[in-house]
Amino acid sequence: METKGIISSAQNPKLKLLLQLQQKSSERRKHGLFVVEGLREILHCLSAGYEIDSLFYCPQIADNGALKQIQCVLPSNRCYEINSDIYQKVAYRGGTEGVIAEVRTRNLKLKDLKLSPSPLIMVLESVEKPGNLGAILRSADASGVDAVIVCDPLTDLFNPNLIRSSIGAVFTVPTVACSSSECIGFMKEHGIQILTAQLQDSSLYYATDMRRPTAIIMGTEATGLTQQWRDAADAHIRIPMLGRLDSLNVSVSAAILMYEAVRQRSGLDQKRMERLI
Amino acid sequence: METKGIISSAQNPKLKLLLQLQQKSSERRKHGLFVVEGLREILHCLSAGYEIDSLFYCPQIADNGALKQIQCVLPSNRCYEINSDIYQKVAYRGGTEGVIAEVRTRNLKLKDLKLSPSPLIMVLESVEKPGNLGAILRSADASGVDAVIVCDPLTDLFNPNLIRSSIGAVFTVPTVACSSSECIGFMKEHGIQILTAQLQDSSLYYATDMRRPTAIIMGTEATGLTQQWRDAADAHIRIPMLGRLDSLNVSVSAAILMYEAVRQRSGLDQKRMERLI
Repeated sequence: METKGIISSAQNPKLKLLLQLQQKSSERRKHGLFVVEGLREILHCLSAGYEIDSLFYCPQIADNGALKQIQCVLPSNRCYEINSDIYQKVAYRGGTEGVIAEVRTRNLKLKDLKLSPSPLIMVLESVEKPGNLGAILRSADASGVDAVIVCDPLTDLFNPNLIRSSIGAVFTVPTVACSSSECIGFMKEHGIQILTAQLQDSSLYYATDMRRPTAIIMGTEATGLTQQWRDAADAHIRIPMLGRLDSLNVSVSAAILMYEAVRQRSGLDQKRMERLI
Repeated sequence: METKGIISSAQNPKLKLLLQLQQKSSERRKHGLFVVEGLREILHCLSAGYEIDSLFYCPQIADNGALKQIQCVLPSNRCYEINSDIYQKVAYRGGTEGVIAEVRTRNLKLKDLKLSPSPLIMVLESVEKPGNLGAILRSADASGVDAVIVCDPLTDLFNPNLIRSSIGAVFTVPTVACSSSECIGFMKEHGIQILTAQLQDSSLYYATDMRRPTAIIMGTEATGLTQQWRDAADAHIRIPMLGRLDSLNVSVSAAILMYEAVRQRSGLDQKRMERLI
């Protein structure tokens, strides 16, 4: 593979920046760059139209065919060769694929969203753990939602834990960060019903019509939804808890709710829903 | 709290054993003991009838009320005080609750299971990651399944990662480890339909009747189910994949399938199911 050059010292300023971008959201914001590791993730990132600023690869580890796939779309002056010692130092959590990219951030806005005629949107309010958000994005990809919106986020969307646990879904699913007020305004303006996941005054999720334009709203792992969302809701929905622990993981709950919408929209039970609701 | 004594050296043989039990399944088997951390988990363990062999607690960290709760059911000669330095050394992954228990293993057998009239059973074949198995157990508790059966397990049920990610569900949900052959025999003998999660020749999961006695079978993250299970199946079921990544986490898939059974069994749509299947 043609390259810009070989980096052989971990003290190289390019590598120092790479580590800072992995560790600090403030550095990501300052430089407008974030880090993507792994071939599959980088390819998803490219095909979603993101721009790769620099690619670091380790020829002792990276698959040659994989590198060629990336090289097809990337000018050689953006590629840097690193040896396996340095790769191990900069790879996040024991990466094994030998490729790391610095990518330009993009901040999708609510107004940029292209919605289907009856959109299904997953909204997360202040979810704390990047890993949970990544897992929700992965299920959001699978269930074909129109968008994931993160309100008043406590983590940026370019956190390496989030990217890793989403296995690239953060690139395949349109994802917006905004305030709860903006998001509520957007739903009202577009006639999208707001279903909040909460126990109080709630209906069972599978007895709630999700075939019309729908946003499902979930709160933080610890404290649930804010009053602002509760007040804005068209209906409250709950997943029945039949065990002794009374707790589902937030990403599991999100997947159960998104797939209920998939089921209802499959057309299998139009008549039943009409009878029921 | 009254105690057997204070352990002030990390070289104490009791603490060495504790670390070995956390790290090695062979040590757990040899001694018939495993390790449970955290107040909630220990209380679930106790209320499920497990026997605590030794309790280690750190008075600087542990909540006093919590300790009293445990002390009510535990003879003082099984309790050992440790200081916070030692606690940090023996606590698994930054534990913060100040209590660790060594508990006698119990190996529930298929014949010990007490099934409801129309049982719902989750079967995992050789799931590799203890964390995934723990997450499945947590959702199994919430969805009220009769049992989780782990066939030809690659991890023991007393792995600390499994216990932690199950947040105690490994104690609240009857969990059996056995061979796939034994498990298939058990299902046939009890007239429980076998639904295997696989793509080939499959129906959509929500168009499959799960109201009758049902076992849902899922395979490994990497290679899916073995032929033995495919041959034994009454039907194959799949979760539709509507995105670009074509992959759901195994614990998320399991939760979607278990909750579809909950939905069908809720009695909301008897008529629809009868029309459909």
